[in-house]
Amino acid sequence: MDPRISIVTLGVQVLERSRQFYKEAFGWEPASGQEGISFYQLGGLVFALYPDDLLAADANAQPFQGGFRGITLAYNVREKSDVAKVLATAEAAGATIVKPATDTDWGGHGGYLTDPDGHLWEIAYNPFFPLNARGEIEIPTA
Amino acid sequence: MDPRISIVTLGVQVLERSRQFYKEAFGWEPASGQEGISFYQLGGLVFALYPDDLLAADANAQPFQGGFRGITLAYNVREKSDVAKVLATAEAAGATIVKPATDTDWGGHGGYLTDPDGHLWEIAYNPFFPLNARGEIEIPTA
Repeated sequence: MDPRISIVTLGVQVLERSRQFYKEAFGWEPASGQEGISFYQLGGLVFALYPDDLLAADANAQPFQGGFRGITLAYNVREKSDVAKVLATAEAAGATIVKPATDTDWGGHGGYLTDPDGHLWEIAYNPFFPLNARGEIEIPTA
Repeated sequence: MDPRISIVTLGVQVLERSRQFYKEAFGWEPASGQEGISFYQLGGLVFALYPDDLLAADANAQPFQGGFRGITLAYNVREKSDVAKVLATAEAAGATIVKPATDTDWGGHGGYLTDPDGHLWEIAYNPFFPLNARGEIEIPTA
């Protein structure tokens, strides 16, 4: 298999609420022409919002029961001060800040927010993993 | 915010077990030089494996309680027949096939596997969202 993830799909309870959230908190607009699901082109991958019960059914899984999902998404920023700014914007749009902007023990800086369904996003500044001109994160080669 | 996800981090119970799984099932090798966490360069994003309890603590969350996580990752393939092949390779490496390769109601073809911690991967063929030469998925513009 090639090194790629094609789609990250978040199960959500109210699609329109989540669509509004990602528009207001992150400034992201879905691609047009889809009903019942929202697709976003994020660089080389697709981010999707889909009703939680339908996502569970599609995967032959039981509905989500709440609590920590054991998976996080991170959005890395170019400047340390951007972490607090992104968190503040998201909070104004309804995000819950579960961890404010904090220096990390590995020499970075970051905080966490949750979206309306509790999906965790880390907003992070990592001076060791630079972002290229296209905003893509790059692990330095030794 | 720019349209990007920088990092997708999966909480795992046994890091070495998961590292072996992603090597044998997906053929993915982590970047070198990291202890206690595995980072993979997947195109423009980083995929990470990290102990579940530490991930929860980092996000000020309670430990994962099991069950459906309400989020899925998808790996899209170029040919319909690749879905069953990828699932078979993953199964031989210890994946659980929770949905075999099946035609979907939207005109695609796909199946689901879970990794050793129950993280869901859809292996999908989607004739409407092509993969470019770099393997990146692209939502067609209207």
